[in-house]
Amino acid sequence: MLNVLFSAKPAVWEEYEAPLRNAFTNVGLDVDLACDHAPADVDYIVFAPNGPVTDFSPYTKTKAVMSLWAGVETVVDNLTLTQPLCRLVDHSLTQGMVEWVVGHTLRHHLGMDTHITRQDGVWREAFPPVATDRPVTILGIGALGAACGQALHQLGFPVTGWSRSAKDIPNLRCLHGDDGLTAALTDAEIVVLLLPQTPETENILNTETLGLLAQGAFIINPGRGPLIDDDALLAALDSGQIAHATLDVFRVEPLPQDHRYWAHPQVTVTPHIASTTRPETASAVIAGNIARGEADKPFHNVVDRRFGY
Amino acid sequence: MLNVLFSAKPAVWEEYEAPLRNAFTNVGLDVDLACDHAPADVDYIVFAPNGPVTDFSPYTKTKAVMSLWAGVETVVDNLTLTQPLCRLVDHSLTQGMVEWVVGHTLRHHLGMDTHITRQDGVWREAFPPVATDRPVTILGIGALGAACGQALHQLGFPVTGWSRSAKDIPNLRCLHGDDGLTAALTDAEIVVLLLPQTPETENILNTETLGLLAQGAFIINPGRGPLIDDDALLAALDSGQIAHATLDVFRVEPLPQDHRYWAHPQVTVTPHIASTTRPETASAVIAGNIARGEADKPFHNVVDRRFGY
Repeated sequence: MLNVLFSAKPAVWEEYEAPLRNAFTNVGLDVDLACDHAPADVDYIVFAPNGPVTDFSPYTKTKAVMSLWAGVETVVDNLTLTQPLCRLVDHSLTQGMVEWVVGHTLRHHLGMDTHITRQDGVWREAFPPVATDRPVTILGIGALGAACGQALHQLGFPVTGWSRSAKDIPNLRCLHGDDGLTAALTDAEIVVLLLPQTPETENILNTETLGLLAQGAFIINPGRGPLIDDDALLAALDSGQIAHATLDVFRVEPLPQDHRYWAHPQVTVTPHIASTTRPETASAVIAGNIARGEADKPFHNVVDRRFGY
Repeated sequence: MLNVLFSAKPAVWEEYEAPLRNAFTNVGLDVDLACDHAPADVDYIVFAPNGPVTDFSPYTKTKAVMSLWAGVETVVDNLTLTQPLCRLVDHSLTQGMVEWVVGHTLRHHLGMDTHITRQDGVWREAFPPVATDRPVTILGIGALGAACGQALHQLGFPVTGWSRSAKDIPNLRCLHGDDGLTAALTDAEIVVLLLPQTPETENILNTETLGLLAQGAFIINPGRGPLIDDDALLAALDSGQIAHATLDVFRVEPLPQDHRYWAHPQVTVTPHIASTTRPETASAVIAGNIARGEADKPFHNVVDRRFGY
């Protein structure tokens, strides 16, 4: 019998209790799942960064902490967390992200907003280039970025992917490091941000890097708010260097009503909906990962604290 | 030396003259391309339905008529046209159509318009289903419809394709005939119209067939205007049976300024831009097809007048 502690807000427990119990049964694990195990008895923690557990030191026999979130930047520096921390890499999260990124990339590529917002009886015949003539750059080519890159490639876009360390992903031009970043952004017409939030990636889009893009480029940020220097982006929108930004994530969420992003005509704010974790698929991933641990296999998606993700 | 007559509006000649000459050279044909050959001397006609040639009977030695348009409904009933008529099937036309159809499918699937049009500071967190739970039906699975179907399948949508006669296309649930039409439309949440315009397809979306769809379905019409009974669609929009229609083609184009579609809040009119023929790629297709004829091979994409396309 494994003691699994669920540490998240009560509404999340309501969503997850039944799917998690099913998932444990499906992988053949005998689990006592509860929100109130004594810390010293806990084998695994299913964990949301905004839940009740903040001090991991009493969890002396806990073998791993399974995050319910893909982004772990708010917990990775917690010095009491000495157990392995596993990020959630959930197929339905990836699927939703691909849909959102491809949808908004095509929206900007095709110039849809003109037609959606101006139904004024004027027949504005104008054709966009085809996708093969529209270079897209994705900063961050982990599970989410790589999947978006494949989908955009299949639609014909030439896709460049950038990451901190070297990667080799079929169908993408993969660049890395500081020099690679300059090359990846130079003349890009659409930039998608899917980097983890770390000290190195904060403000990665700033006055200098925004200036490398093709004039009239589009920014799509479903990653993390601090990846963008907000003042620099607003200035680049006003100057015409950036034509439009679609932003799903912000330094403060919900984005305050008086934030300039809401009022700017070339910014589309979306309320952190680019993708979401679905309890059924997430539960299967977490149960499967715990089963790996119990079978003495290495956990999937363990966070490397040197890099912060 | 082949005499090729170019019959289209003067602006089209300006766009096409150089690409066509290049394309003939590239396939090794010695061509006298002009807008004013004597009819009896013409070997091939490169033809737009809105150009000067309307009576084909003086073109006694003409081996084929090569349409610059994909849709040939305005010429197929011309009784003077006894020569083979070839539709244009152009890769860049297909590419542009796939981008437009996938883009607007994702736009409706994700509910983008709420965010594009309402930047009012309200954080409206709501998640769409994933694509795998959003059935899409494409009426018309010729070159354009089949390509759109593949792209939507790759994004995870379950895609049903319907055609007049039986087809078997990988990854699509292919239905045909009257019974197949009912099955294809029943409970569909997004319907894409890419049928040719024929007497059989006129008003194929009408009060009865619109009623088969899932409540709150979306209609996307990049095909031909007369495929839809406009009064029936407007009534279905007003009743809530249809949530939104994005229409690129109309019975009269440009759509008159006072047409109810412009004013209806649940209709997006786009000005016949879903895709366009690009002179370079279209010229290569036409030159290649003429080269086939000169090598005594059957022409590609010959219109079957029994079916009208």
